[in-house]
Amino acid sequence: MTVNPQQVISNLEELRALTGDANGAQRLAWSPSWLKAQRWFETKTDDLPVERHYDSAGNLWTTLHGESPRALLLGSHLDSVPNGGWLDGCLGTLAALEVLRGISAEYKNKPPVTVRLVDWADEEGARFGRSLFGSSAFAGTYTIAADRGRIDRDGTCLEDALKQCGFDIDRIGDAQKERANAAAYLELHIEQGPVLEKMGLPLGVVLGTKGVERHAITFLGQEAHSGSTPMAVRRDALAAAAKLALEIRPIARKHADSVATMGSVKTFPGIVTAVVGRCEATLDMRDLDAVVLVQMFEEAAAASERFAAEENCSVEWSRIWSIEPIPFHPELIELCDTAIRETAGASHRLPSGPLHDAAEVSRAGIPTVMMFTQSLNGLSHNKAEDTKKEHLALAVEAFARLAAKTMRWIEDRL
Amino acid sequence: MTVNPQQVISNLEELRALTGDANGAQRLAWSPSWLKAQRWFETKTDDLPVERHYDSAGNLWTTLHGESPRALLLGSHLDSVPNGGWLDGCLGTLAALEVLRGISAEYKNKPPVTVRLVDWADEEGARFGRSLFGSSAFAGTYTIAADRGRIDRDGTCLEDALKQCGFDIDRIGDAQKERANAAAYLELHIEQGPVLEKMGLPLGVVLGTKGVERHAITFLGQEAHSGSTPMAVRRDALAAAAKLALEIRPIARKHADSVATMGSVKTFPGIVTAVVGRCEATLDMRDLDAVVLVQMFEEAAAASERFAAEENCSVEWSRIWSIEPIPFHPELIELCDTAIRETAGASHRLPSGPLHDAAEVSRAGIPTVMMFTQSLNGLSHNKAEDTKKEHLALAVEAFARLAAKTMRWIEDRL
Repeated sequence: MTVNPQQVISNLEELRALTGDANGAQRLAWSPSWLKAQRWFETKTDDLPVERHYDSAGNLWTTLHGESPRALLLGSHLDSVPNGGWLDGCLGTLAALEVLRGISAEYKNKPPVTVRLVDWADEEGARFGRSLFGSSAFAGTYTIAADRGRIDRDGTCLEDALKQCGFDIDRIGDAQKERANAAAYLELHIEQGPVLEKMGLPLGVVLGTKGVERHAITFLGQEAHSGSTPMAVRRDALAAAAKLALEIRPIARKHADSVATMGSVKTFPGIVTAVVGRCEATLDMRDLDAVVLVQMFEEAAAASERFAAEENCSVEWSRIWSIEPIPFHPELIELCDTAIRETAGASHRLPSGPLHDAAEVSRAGIPTVMMFTQSLNGLSHNKAEDTKKEHLALAVEAFARLAAKTMRWIEDRL
Repeated sequence: MTVNPQQVISNLEELRALTGDANGAQRLAWSPSWLKAQRWFETKTDDLPVERHYDSAGNLWTTLHGESPRALLLGSHLDSVPNGGWLDGCLGTLAALEVLRGISAEYKNKPPVTVRLVDWADEEGARFGRSLFGSSAFAGTYTIAADRGRIDRDGTCLEDALKQCGFDIDRIGDAQKERANAAAYLELHIEQGPVLEKMGLPLGVVLGTKGVERHAITFLGQEAHSGSTPMAVRRDALAAAAKLALEIRPIARKHADSVATMGSVKTFPGIVTAVVGRCEATLDMRDLDAVVLVQMFEEAAAASERFAAEENCSVEWSRIWSIEPIPFHPELIELCDTAIRETAGASHRLPSGPLHDAAEVSRAGIPTVMMFTQSLNGLSHNKAEDTKKEHLALAVEAFARLAAKTMRWIEDRL
C-alpha cells in the first residue's frame, strides 16, 4: 500500500486554517466549528466508494466494504479543547483517512476485509467535562443519567447541546450497533508527553492506558489571624496539604511509570492575613498495573491521615473518578512494534497516561493498539503543541504498515 | 474614679441589636449602618459637658476640656468587618466612653487635663482594603493618591464613598490638626489571639505592634499533562510552593513571638489533570523586632530560591505591603502593667500581631499604650468572637485605672 504523508500534513494545515485562530484549534465538541470540521472531513471521502453515516452518539463512520464483513477500524477524533493544538486528535483521523485511501487504491476499492474509519464525537469532554463521549456510547459504558444535565459555562446542558446537533441523548446506546463485525481497532496519536523525545525516537507502541484514581481531598484546620496566632497553636490546613503535595512524589517514584499529581489547591479563606482553615486539593494517580495503582492510593491516603494528625487537622477524601488500567492486545502490540521498526529502525513500548478512545474500544473487547508519535517538549492541549514534520511522515507510513499487517492478521483469523 | 462596667456591656449589647444581624456585626465603614452607629454613639454623650465634632477624615472627637489643654486621648473604632464580632473595636470605644464619664464625674466636669475620646474612621479597611484610614490621616501617614481610586465590590470608589458621607478625600490631611496638645493615647482592645487565654489571664499589656512583611510569591514551572509527564521531568510549581509553606514555620519558630503565614495559594491552570505550571502564594511575616523581621524575610527569600532551583522552577517576589515594628511608650507600658496588676492580680506583656489605630498614633510621636483583654478561642472577625463578661468588667476597671494613672503622668510633665 502507498500513502502520501504530505497529503496528511496538508490536510492538517487546511483544517487548522478552517477551524483554528491565533490562539489555536477551536473545535469544541457540539459547537458550530466542530460541525464544520466534520462536514469538511466528509468532503474528503466524496471521491471514494464508501458509505458514510453518523451513529446515534454523533460518531462519523466511513466504511469501505471489503470481501469480508469483518472490519478493521481506524479512528481518532476531530474535536479539540479550546485553544488546542493542531495535532491532538485530528492527526489520527487524517492519517486514518490517508490509510483508507491507500487501501482503497491498493485493492481497487475492494479490500479483503472491510475497513471503517471512525471520527469519535467529543473525545475531549472539554465543554461538559465528559470525555470519551462517543466511544463510550459505542462501548456500552455510557452514563446517560449522570451526563444528561451536565452544563457548559454558558448554562447549556449536554442533552440540549446534543439535540441542537440532531442527537437524542436517550438513544446514544444505539451506537453499540457499530460494534458488529469489528475485528480490530488502531489509533495513531501524538504522545502528549516527553518520553519519546527524551529517547530520540519518532515513534512508540502504546501498551495500554493507565488506570486512574482521581480524588478530591479536603483538609480541615482552623482559620485564625495571621498576626495574633502563635505558630505553636495553629491548625494550618495548608501545611497538611503541602506535606501531601510533596509525599505523593516518592510514592509514585517507587514504580517505573507511575505518576501522581496534585493539580489544584484552593485555600480558604485564602487571604494574606489568615491561617488557612480549609484546604481543598485534587490528586490524580495513574499506573498501568492495577495492583500498583491501589498501593499508591492506599499509601497516599495513609500519608494524608498522618499529616492531618501532625497538624491537628482532619482530612476527607472523595473519589472524583476512577478507571481501571486497560492493556492493549498483545498480538497487535507486536504488530505495531514491528511496523515501527520497519519504518523508523527503532521502537519503544510505553503506557499512555492520558486516556484515549482506544481505551473504550478495548474495554468493548475489540483487539486494540495505539501508536504514538513524538511530541515536542511534551506539550499538548495548547497552541505550542507540535511534532517535527519528518516524524509526522514516519508516523503515517508506520501506521499504514500497521494497518496492512492488521488486515492480514484479521484475514488469518477469518 | 468610679466606672460601671455593666454599663459598657449594656451599651455593647445595645449597639449589637442596632447594627448587627444573625451573621454578626455589620458596621462596614462609610455604610449607612456605620453612620447609624456613630449617631447612636453621639447621643451617649448628650448629657456631658463635651464638645463634639468630626474631623476632615471622618474621625469623631468628643472633648471634655480640662484645666490644662494638654490632652489624654482615649480611642478605638466603631466600624467592623462584614459579619464581624460584637467586641472588636467597639469594646474600646465604649470602655473609653465609660472612662470619660467616670472622669467627668470624679472632677465635676473639669479634670486637671483635657480628655478626648476619639472614634477612628475605617480602622478595618474591610470595604476598600485600606485599614487604619482615619488614624493614618491623623498621623500624617495617609496616602491619598494610592487610595483615591480603591473600589469596593460594588464598584464604588473610596473617594466617592467619602463624598457620600460628606468628606473630601483631598482634605483628610487636615485631621492632623487634632494632634495639637495630644499628650498620651490609650486603647483597649480584645487580644484576637489565644495567648492570654492559654495563660489563664484576663488582661495583658501590649508592647507594641509587630512589623509586617507582606509579599506575593510566584513560582513558575511548566504546565504539563498529569498522565503523560513522568515524575522525573516535571517542573512542578506547587512542589516548590509546598516546600516554602513548610519552611516558613521553622524560620518563624526560631524567635519567641515571630509568626509567618502562607494564607493563600492559587494553582494554574489549577485542574486535576495538569501539573501546576504557576503557583501564586502570599506570605505574611511579623515580629516586634525589626532585625528579626529582616532576618526572617531574607531566610524565606533564600529558601524560595533554593526550592525553585530544586524543582527547576523560577520564583519572583513582590512586596504587597510592609510596616516597621511600632513599640509603645516604655513608661506607659509600666503604668498599664501596674493598672492590670492592681485590678486583676497578674499581668502579661505581649506584642500585638494585628495592627491597631494605636500604631498610627504612636508613629505620630504621641506616647501610646494598649491594653488587651482575653479572647475566647482566639477568635475574631466573626460572630463567634467573644470574651467572658467578668473579663470585660475587669478590662473596663483596669482601663479606668490606666487612664487615671496616665492623667497624673501628664500632669507631672506639664
